[in-house]
Amino acid sequence: MAVIESIPNVSEGRRADVIQRLADAIRGTKGVELLDVSSDASHNRSVFTLVGDAASLKAATMALFEQAVAAIDLRTHQGEHPRLGAVDVVPFVPIEGVTIEECVALARDVGAAVAARFGVPVFLYEEAAANPSRRNLEDIRRGEFEGLAAKMTAADWAPDFGPAAPHPSAGATVVGARMPLIAYNINLDTDRLDVARKIAAAIRHSSGGLRYVKAMGIKIDDRNLTQVSMNLTNFQKTPMFRVFEMVKREAERYGVAVLESEIVGLVPLAALVSSAEFYLQLERFSGDQILENKLKR
Amino acid sequence: MAVIESIPNVSEGRRADVIQRLADAIRGTKGVELLDVSSDASHNRSVFTLVGDAASLKAATMALFEQAVAAIDLRTHQGEHPRLGAVDVVPFVPIEGVTIEECVALARDVGAAVAARFGVPVFLYEEAAANPSRRNLEDIRRGEFEGLAAKMTAADWAPDFGPAAPHPSAGATVVGARMPLIAYNINLDTDRLDVARKIAAAIRHSSGGLRYVKAMGIKIDDRNLTQVSMNLTNFQKTPMFRVFEMVKREAERYGVAVLESEIVGLVPLAALVSSAEFYLQLERFSGDQILENKLKR
Repeated sequence: MAVIESIPNVSEGRRADVIQRLADAIRGTKGVELLDVSSDASHNRSVFTLVGDAASLKAATMALFEQAVAAIDLRTHQGEHPRLGAVDVVPFVPIEGVTIEECVALARDVGAAVAARFGVPVFLYEEAAANPSRRNLEDIRRGEFEGLAAKMTAADWAPDFGPAAPHPSAGATVVGARMPLIAYNINLDTDRLDVARKIAAAIRHSSGGLRYVKAMGIKIDDRNLTQVSMNLTNFQKTPMFRVFEMVKREAERYGVAVLESEIVGLVPLAALVSSAEFYLQLERFSGDQILENKLKR
Repeated sequence: MAVIESIPNVSEGRRADVIQRLADAIRGTKGVELLDVSSDASHNRSVFTLVGDAASLKAATMALFEQAVAAIDLRTHQGEHPRLGAVDVVPFVPIEGVTIEECVALARDVGAAVAARFGVPVFLYEEAAANPSRRNLEDIRRGEFEGLAAKMTAADWAPDFGPAAPHPSAGATVVGARMPLIAYNINLDTDRLDVARKIAAAIRHSSGGLRYVKAMGIKIDDRNLTQVSMNLTNFQKTPMFRVFEMVKREAERYGVAVLESEIVGLVPLAALVSSAEFYLQLERFSGDQILENKLKR
């Protein structure tokens, strides 16, 4: 069975009754499982994590929009986190038995349906972007809700779906598809921040490194260590083991050892299994051989 | 939720209607999932693979015995595979959220219940053995059904549960707990069988190597290679990565490279994850961080 994750970010983090209604709209959709709700009052924003197949997630997104558009008015919304709309961002992430291309198709399908039913303009981002200048969420969101009406008068800011101007109260929504992020840190047995920074610069895409790595060097003061702190944005194309080995090799050049690494938050199983396959030189291995995969969900 | 695997071996591999009734008895038990049935006519034996929690597996085992004791008569049973009883062996294997000790407790509970209800003597084996000379299944089964009545007259062959003599038609049953087996092979880039054999001798428990490794060196004729062919009998205490690294190091001593490794059949997820943890030097990692584990079964 296909498992897709969706992580809608909604511009409401203070009114518990509204957040409850939004969560209930998701929970009430057949075939969808709501894994987590995180609300932040200072951001005035809630992040929902749900999984399901494409059809169920589309239904849940529509149900969420129905509640959010009715309850949230961006004209009076205040919060620290940048936002464009009542339902601000809706990413779809492939987890199991599904490709990124199918998530792109789902993003387009949901974007069109949302625009048609709620009159909210939709911008497609990341892998779903029709326009390369819209891959990056921050570029789309720059100027926020308050600057959106003016921004959308420019020819290159026509939305991918829906009206040419923001919805009066619900603004606009950014919908897209991306690979799961892995927050991955490697701790170096040195307090020399310059070493961590040089390694970060060597490994990250923006300065010539691996395509799907964002990295910075930071200090871990309470342990007298430094860290290469990373986001891996496509673990299939830039796998964890390759990142680890490259950091280790760069550290050697400074006479520095890798002390340990850590994964912050969630990691897709396939990222760990591919590391085991690499190091154990496993051939002819398939996920069907994992005993737990034989058990019914 | 606890997931235990049970792999009852039953002395019937020819009569499809009987095998069907045995499978139906398992499938009809609430909370149990029958993953596989493999029947072998020349062995005249069927192997059922089922999973569930302790209470469900106990109920399924009782239901299986009820059908097997009624349908199978060892006095007329013929087949190539050694056997003691109608239900010959019942191992319980910890898969997820459960310890080997809990499987030992389940084996004892089931053994006592089977003996009480069906009058079949039960011998406990492997981790459940009360007597060290009964850890090994082959030692218990030596002499087979035909020699059992005489064997049981010896003081040290009193059963762990049930009558002091075999059940007239159903013989005796061996019940126990063991860790999952991993069939793990490492292919060497050499056709020198002596090298594969020396490495197998170095790595296996019986000749001084790692505690939970059985190994032999064999030729892979069609590829002009040799192989260290292994069974890992407790991947938690003797992990795959340690076996792999030790074989690689021993091969180096002969100037031989490890070409690849392979897992034959099923492998518990934890065996792969612990290899990723080892090589990536992961600290503070927990299985709860695996995204798929957040999804409901």
